[in-house]
Order: sequence, then structure tokens, then C-alpha cells
Amino acid sequence: MSKQKRKSDCPINFALEIFGDRWTFLIVRDLMFKNKHYYGEFLGMEEKIATNILADRLILLEENGIVTRTIDEAHNSKKIYRLTKKGIDLLPLLTEAILWSAKYDKSTAADSKFIRKAKKDRVGLYAEISESLK
Amino acid sequence: MSKQKRKSDCPINFALEIFGDRWTFLIVRDLMFKNKHYYGEFLGMEEKIATNILADRLILLEENGIVTRTIDEAHNSKKIYRLTKKGIDLLPLLTEAILWSAKYDKSTAADSKFIRKAKKDRVGLYAEISESLK
Repeated sequence: MSKQKRKSDCPINFALEIFGDRWTFLIVRDLMFKNKHYYGEFLGMEEKIATNILADRLILLEENGIVTRTIDEAHNSKKIYRLTKKGIDLLPLLTEAILWSAKYDKSTAADSKFIRKAKKDRVGLYAEISESLK
Repeated sequence: MSKQKRKSDCPINFALEIFGDRWTFLIVRDLMFKNKHYYGEFLGMEEKIATNILADRLILLEENGIVTRTIDEAHNSKKIYRLTKKGIDLLPLLTEAILWSAKYDKSTAADSKFIRKAKKDRVGLYAEISESLK
């Protein structure tokens, strides 16, 4: 995004210039809710991301300050990806996407415990997930 | 979406199978916040949507029950597009996208009155916008 001219300063468009691609968003989902941190783990997602797309989107996420990439000394110096504060701040957006889908998708796999908690105690849910990502 | 096999039942993926395309989302934005209802109005968006993409995405939105298309007798029988309840229910998701962008985009065009209201009285804001869309 930083390298090309923006199409507008609209805030919806700002988010879309990063996320207007399903794969980018699914990687953030894996980091946020599925405790995934490694390339091979993202590659294993149910939606079957292609390896070149995964590599490209991880760079995009890093360039936009949404993930950090560091070396994991504990795991053969593999690259480990983590959400930044800016990335974790996407939690309300993802939560609203989950609630909307849970409402309108008859065959949703949304976690009913998550849905209940999101409806009853949003602040507590966000605190719990943010804490788990530290 | 109804016509092709889904990649997963994940609720994030459900939303992305409809919105994992920036243009679809920008049309919903125009309907939600910019009081636009006609083909020519969407075509005039700042981000410059191509006419074939616009036509395609309007069909997608209609097929997915997010917009209705009717004949506007008051305006030379032009087609008029409106958000359905399912479409209006995307308001929290769009609002979170706006808040996130307003926080992280230094050159945001986000409306400061909207941001203030979203932070102070979310319920009131949603009621006001939903009412305006009826």
C-alpha cells in the first residue's frame, strides 16, 4: 500500500487496500483465533492458500505493520509471525464479521461460546483474546 | 456464492466469500453512508469502479440478499438499489473498519463527528443510520 498511490482517503477504502483480498484476512484470522504462527501452519488452512500467495500476503502484512516476523530460537530458528498492536486492534472488525456470518449462514461453524460471549460481554472477550496474543 | 462450493464453514470465510473483494464492499459503503442508490451514482465513486465490475458486483449483492433492485417509478423507471436488513446489519462491521482506519491512517478522511459518536454512543449511532436507510 505504501508503494502505490491510494485511490481515496476514505477510511473504508484504507482498510480495503490492505484487506480487500480474502487471503490477507484469513491469515489474520489464523493468527488471531487459531494460535498459528508459522508459515507451514498458515499453509495448512482449510481454505487452501497457495504458497506464493501466502508468501506475498505475509510480506504485505509485515510492510503494513500488522504482523512482525522474527526468528524463533526455540524452534530451529524458524520464522515466527505475530500480530502487532495494530493487528490485534482488528479484533472488533473480525468479531463483527463473525457475528454477521453466524446470523446469516445456516451452516456456520462459528463457535457458539464465542458468539454468546461477544453478545454478553464484548469488553471481557476482547481483553481475554488480547491477553492470549501477548 | 450460492453457485460454487464453499471453501470452509468458517464464519470469517463466509463473510469473505461475499466481501473478499474491495469493490463489493465499496458499493455497500456508498449505500450505507453516502445515500447512493443508482448505478450511475456508484459509477461516480472516487475509487473509479469499472462498469463491468460494478454490474457484476451488484448482481452478486442481490443474489446474496444484501441489496434489492426495484424500479423507481419517480425517476424514469430507473433501477434503484437499497440495502436489505441483512445489508444494514453490516453496519457494525463497517463501523469497526472506519474506527480502525481512523486510528492508523494519518491522512484519513474519516468524519470526526462519526468517530466521536461511534465511541460515545454506538447504539444511538446504529439506530440513527438504520432509521435513515428505511
